[in-house]
Amino acid sequence: MAGCAAALSSFFFEYDTPRIVLIRSRKVGLMNRTVQLLILAYVIGWVFVWEKGYQETDSVVSSITTKVKGVALTNTSELGLRVWDVADYVIPPQQENTLFVMTNIVATLNQRQSTCAELPDAKTVCISDDNCTFGSIDVHGSGVATGKCVHYNAHVKTCEVIAWCPVENDTYVPRPAFLKAAENFTLLIKNHIWYPKFNFTKRNILPNTSATYLKSCIYDTKSDPFCPIFRLGQIVESGGQSFQQMAVEGGIMGIQINWDCNLDRSASHCIPKYSFHRLDNQDSDHTVSPGYNFRFAKYYKDANGTEVRTLIKAYGIRFDTIVFGKAGKFDIIPTMINIGSGLALLGVATVLCDIIVLYLMKKRFYYREKKYKYVEDYEQVNRSLPNFTGEMSRDRLLLSPLGS
Amino acid sequence: MAGCAAALSSFFFEYDTPRIVLIRSRKVGLMNRTVQLLILAYVIGWVFVWEKGYQETDSVVSSITTKVKGVALTNTSELGLRVWDVADYVIPPQQENTLFVMTNIVATLNQRQSTCAELPDAKTVCISDDNCTFGSIDVHGSGVATGKCVHYNAHVKTCEVIAWCPVENDTYVPRPAFLKAAENFTLLIKNHIWYPKFNFTKRNILPNTSATYLKSCIYDTKSDPFCPIFRLGQIVESGGQSFQQMAVEGGIMGIQINWDCNLDRSASHCIPKYSFHRLDNQDSDHTVSPGYNFRFAKYYKDANGTEVRTLIKAYGIRFDTIVFGKAGKFDIIPTMINIGSGLALLGVATVLCDIIVLYLMKKRFYYREKKYKYVEDYEQVNRSLPNFTGEMSRDRLLLSPLGS
Amino acid sequence: MAGCAAALSSFFFEYDTPRIVLIRSRKVGLMNRTVQLLILAYVIGWVFVWEKGYQETDSVVSSITTKVKGVALTNTSELGLRVWDVADYVIPPQQENTLFVMTNIVATLNQRQSTCAELPDAKTVCISDDNCTFGSIDVHGSGVATGKCVHYNAHVKTCEVIAWCPVENDTYVPRPAFLKAAENFTLLIKNHIWYPKFNFTKRNILPNTSATYLKSCIYDTKSDPFCPIFRLGQIVESGGQSFQQMAVEGGIMGIQINWDCNLDRSASHCIPKYSFHRLDNQDSDHTVSPGYNFRFAKYYKDANGTEVRTLIKAYGIRFDTIVFGKAGKFDIIPTMINIGSGLALLGVATVLCDIIVLYLMKKRFYYREKKYKYVEDYEQVNRSLPNFTGEMSRDRLLLSPLGS
Repeated sequence: MAGCAAALSSFFFEYDTPRIVLIRSRKVGLMNRTVQLLILAYVIGWVFVWEKGYQETDSVVSSITTKVKGVALTNTSELGLRVWDVADYVIPPQQENTLFVMTNIVATLNQRQSTCAELPDAKTVCISDDNCTFGSIDVHGSGVATGKCVHYNAHVKTCEVIAWCPVENDTYVPRPAFLKAAENFTLLIKNHIWYPKFNFTKRNILPNTSATYLKSCIYDTKSDPFCPIFRLGQIVESGGQSFQQMAVEGGIMGIQINWDCNLDRSASHCIPKYSFHRLDNQDSDHTVSPGYNFRFAKYYKDANGTEVRTLIKAYGIRFDTIVFGKAGKFDIIPTMINIGSGLALLGVATVLCDIIVLYLMKKRFYYREKKYKYVEDYEQVNRSLPNFTGEMSRDRLLLSPLGS
Repeated sequence: MAGCAAALSSFFFEYDTPRIVLIRSRKVGLMNRTVQLLILAYVIGWVFVWEKGYQETDSVVSSITTKVKGVALTNTSELGLRVWDVADYVIPPQQENTLFVMTNIVATLNQRQSTCAELPDAKTVCISDDNCTFGSIDVHGSGVATGKCVHYNAHVKTCEVIAWCPVENDTYVPRPAFLKAAENFTLLIKNHIWYPKFNFTKRNILPNTSATYLKSCIYDTKSDPFCPIFRLGQIVESGGQSFQQMAVEGGIMGIQINWDCNLDRSASHCIPKYSFHRLDNQDSDHTVSPGYNFRFAKYYKDANGTEVRTLIKAYGIRFDTIVFGKAGKFDIIPTMINIGSGLALLGVATVLCDIIVLYLMKKRFYYREKKYKYVEDYEQVNRSLPNFTGEMSRDRLLLSPLGS
Repeated sequence: MAGCAAALSSFFFEYDTPRIVLIRSRKVGLMNRTVQLLILAYVIGWVFVWEKGYQETDSVVSSITTKVKGVALTNTSELGLRVWDVADYVIPPQQENTLFVMTNIVATLNQRQSTCAELPDAKTVCISDDNCTFGSIDVHGSGVATGKCVHYNAHVKTCEVIAWCPVENDTYVPRPAFLKAAENFTLLIKNHIWYPKFNFTKRNILPNTSATYLKSCIYDTKSDPFCPIFRLGQIVESGGQSFQQMAVEGGIMGIQINWDCNLDRSASHCIPKYSFHRLDNQDSDHTVSPGYNFRFAKYYKDANGTEVRTLIKAYGIRFDTIVFGKAGKFDIIPTMINIGSGLALLGVATVLCDIIVLYLMKKRFYYREKKYKYVEDYEQVNRSLPNFTGEMSRDRLLLSPLGS
């Protein structure tokens, strides 16, 4: 009990610190300090100032709404004079982070369930019924073969299919794009972001913008970088593309909103940065179905109650809004981890200098003497040299009155 | 060869440990232990216990399906007595993480492609044809101007446009909301989550809930926190909003499902926590097109085969399901990083005490003597003081029989 | 001033290194080196080689487009002989990361707004008008009760409702699935990924694949692992499910694309890995509305201009494409953090050996003498033991000519 108390008191009232050799040498001293300075500069300059190693980070959570405005007028022999508005060219009418604006069309009017000649290609062209297999379905075809070979037009015969007839012919895509006026449509993006770890929220419509400004502004990298209303043509051009060229076969534009924020500073410094990139591949050699398109139909019933549909192959530009960003705020954990590893790195300076001083310098034996105290194993010491016993006995004397 | 073997054997059979000065002082000893204790408490208490620094973390991957149930009856002069069910008010019928429930409507029936007077506003009101420019398109307008000035009603004349006629008049939004009964609709959310790093999966329908409970339960923060069926009105109210007010102009509600899990504990402790927030901005001064709405059309053909459409401006509430969470599980790497930086931090205690002991205390010279051994540069030593040579020679004697 | 300069010069020209005891002992030496080796092996082998602790990591950002091809023929008494193509079975026609393929149908033709008998169930079956409450709305019902009790069929009477009539009867789901041919439909996935931190982009159509290969290939784990065209049946089977069984009630398949990349290696090693999992729950005991389905309607107008609709309860498979992955690239910060904590861990070897040597070994007192120098508090020293004063005075002599 008493021994335990003594050990405890010796534990609490003792202070141990390593014994240090202080070598007064210009060469080694300067080297040592230089290495320490470099490590310190790295730890403070790079880890703390540049990479903000003292901050806890969080990823953005975001909600987006989009709205397109604009009207286009087209005049074709098939559809006549026709005005296209939002309800016509945005399909489906709403999506979460994405928005599709139709810019080109291959429309097949008045399709009915019946039989007709398949679109001619290497597989479907036939001479007689023998070339057509009843019931065969081609993955790329429009329907199910009846086994007959019929006239597609005056020159070509193809296998007959049960399908929505007449079958769609998308060989020729209108050039220039049917809704080329889409270049001037405007897109409003409302983006609300949230950093859950810091409970920080913000919108891309900044608090100091007035309602009148919002009604008339158009985003511009230089003059209006915080206006949330974009001209479609400008989005595509900012991504280094030609709108009219992209409108023909469609494509995908990424609207990136970057919300990198340093929350140790005022919230008003946390502002969105917009950038625009084309996300699909334009290299038509290494791709299948280049551009972006999909098919949808409008269903009607004729006077007899038979279902009729208009099949539309819609080419267009899909605008994917990608919100990303990291917010940083001072936090004790990463600070401590970085200080800890920085301190450990400072020790590297001593290790480095030790290597040079103790192994590479001419006077290495002199320095080794100073740093090291060589001690033989106890067994060997007992059958040993007199000068060692001398050393030992002195140390023993020191220890004896304090031994626990 | 022999020298190399000797060096290797000396490397393997040597053990080096720093020499320590043990100072028996109540003041310094207590201070040292206190600082060490604080650092230890921080490392263990905060980094390990609170922030679980010994765990590897992973972010959640999730899949969601939603289903709304409910019927509403409306009675207006324009549409007559009408029942609205899921297929009528959920648009589009399915989306990935989001769901739109229409709560209010501005419907424009029987629109046809023709010419009619534009909706009157500052730009479109005219007195004569001179005020209207042929072919001009306004981004906020409904169509393309024909250049004529025609009667919009008995009092006002506006520029004529080619458009879907009659043009939509959304000046007055129905109050109270048209489908105000949506408050009592129910929303079932099925959420399946996955932590890929730990190959851990779970669903928000917990394994111990019975099918009969699921058929009748309604989520409630207190009494039914694990029921996956929500009343729309309650979601909005839990987010601190009034459903009837929000239903008029629409808005976006975030349904947040938090799956923070400690996978070192049993899987049954990993349960979803729901919370509800309004994600769009209610402050109508600093926003454009407040609330949430979009336009879509239903297309018909009349007896002559002309296309007719019903344009619907749908106001409603979009429910965005945001699943987030982090799972943690013991892993050796972060544990080691934190132990490593913790140990390095323990060294800070010695550094701190050294500063106090060696620079600030009255008896600092006494302690410095104990800690440091001052050594002059070799050059200086050679032309040097006799008492140093005495020290040196003794050390040399010690070293001599062991020198390699 | 002069004192300051002296302090500065002594700071820059001094080199301090800990004094070390080198104990030549086979036992302790080997133990020490073994522990150091283990720690080194862990730091290098596990942290650096295996977990790539020297790399900065980034999460993938991705964009996806999907396209389905295929035709199915059905023949029922209700709908007659009918061909289904993409525009019929993909609803809505496009979504961002997901795609729904309808595989089964409960269609209710020619619904009109009127009154009819509700579908019989425990709540709706009635004997007389007294059982039915005027104006009552059931969340699971089809409409609003009129308060009358009418014949549903020859045997059963149910409460009458104002609703889209006739009401849908989804008691019997067609088995086998209506569009069972969907098994052979193909799905093309175009995936473009981006690592923003490293500005690295890639597509799942690899640069060395030819256009002709892409036109005919079908994904196969072994023979065609980089073909971006999948057979629906195979996706479901790779997830361990039966397509025909899943097609009946629907479900959700996750198509996971893993883009784990080591960007220190050539970009051609960064390739997508596909895997397939069922994401919803098949265990019908613990779930509500098993499978995956939703309702939508096609709206028509009859000869009188009355709205008529076809309500479709669409069962089907939703394919959620989940892109994930981490890219790593050498970066100085994590390298330094890991080296720092590795060095600190190396210190653990000394601590561990010290514990063994100084507390557990038989000759611990011998080793303690060598490592420690015991110093009494200054106060105690002044009224103290003669042998200590002897020690002190010698050290004082050493210090005196160098004291600043």
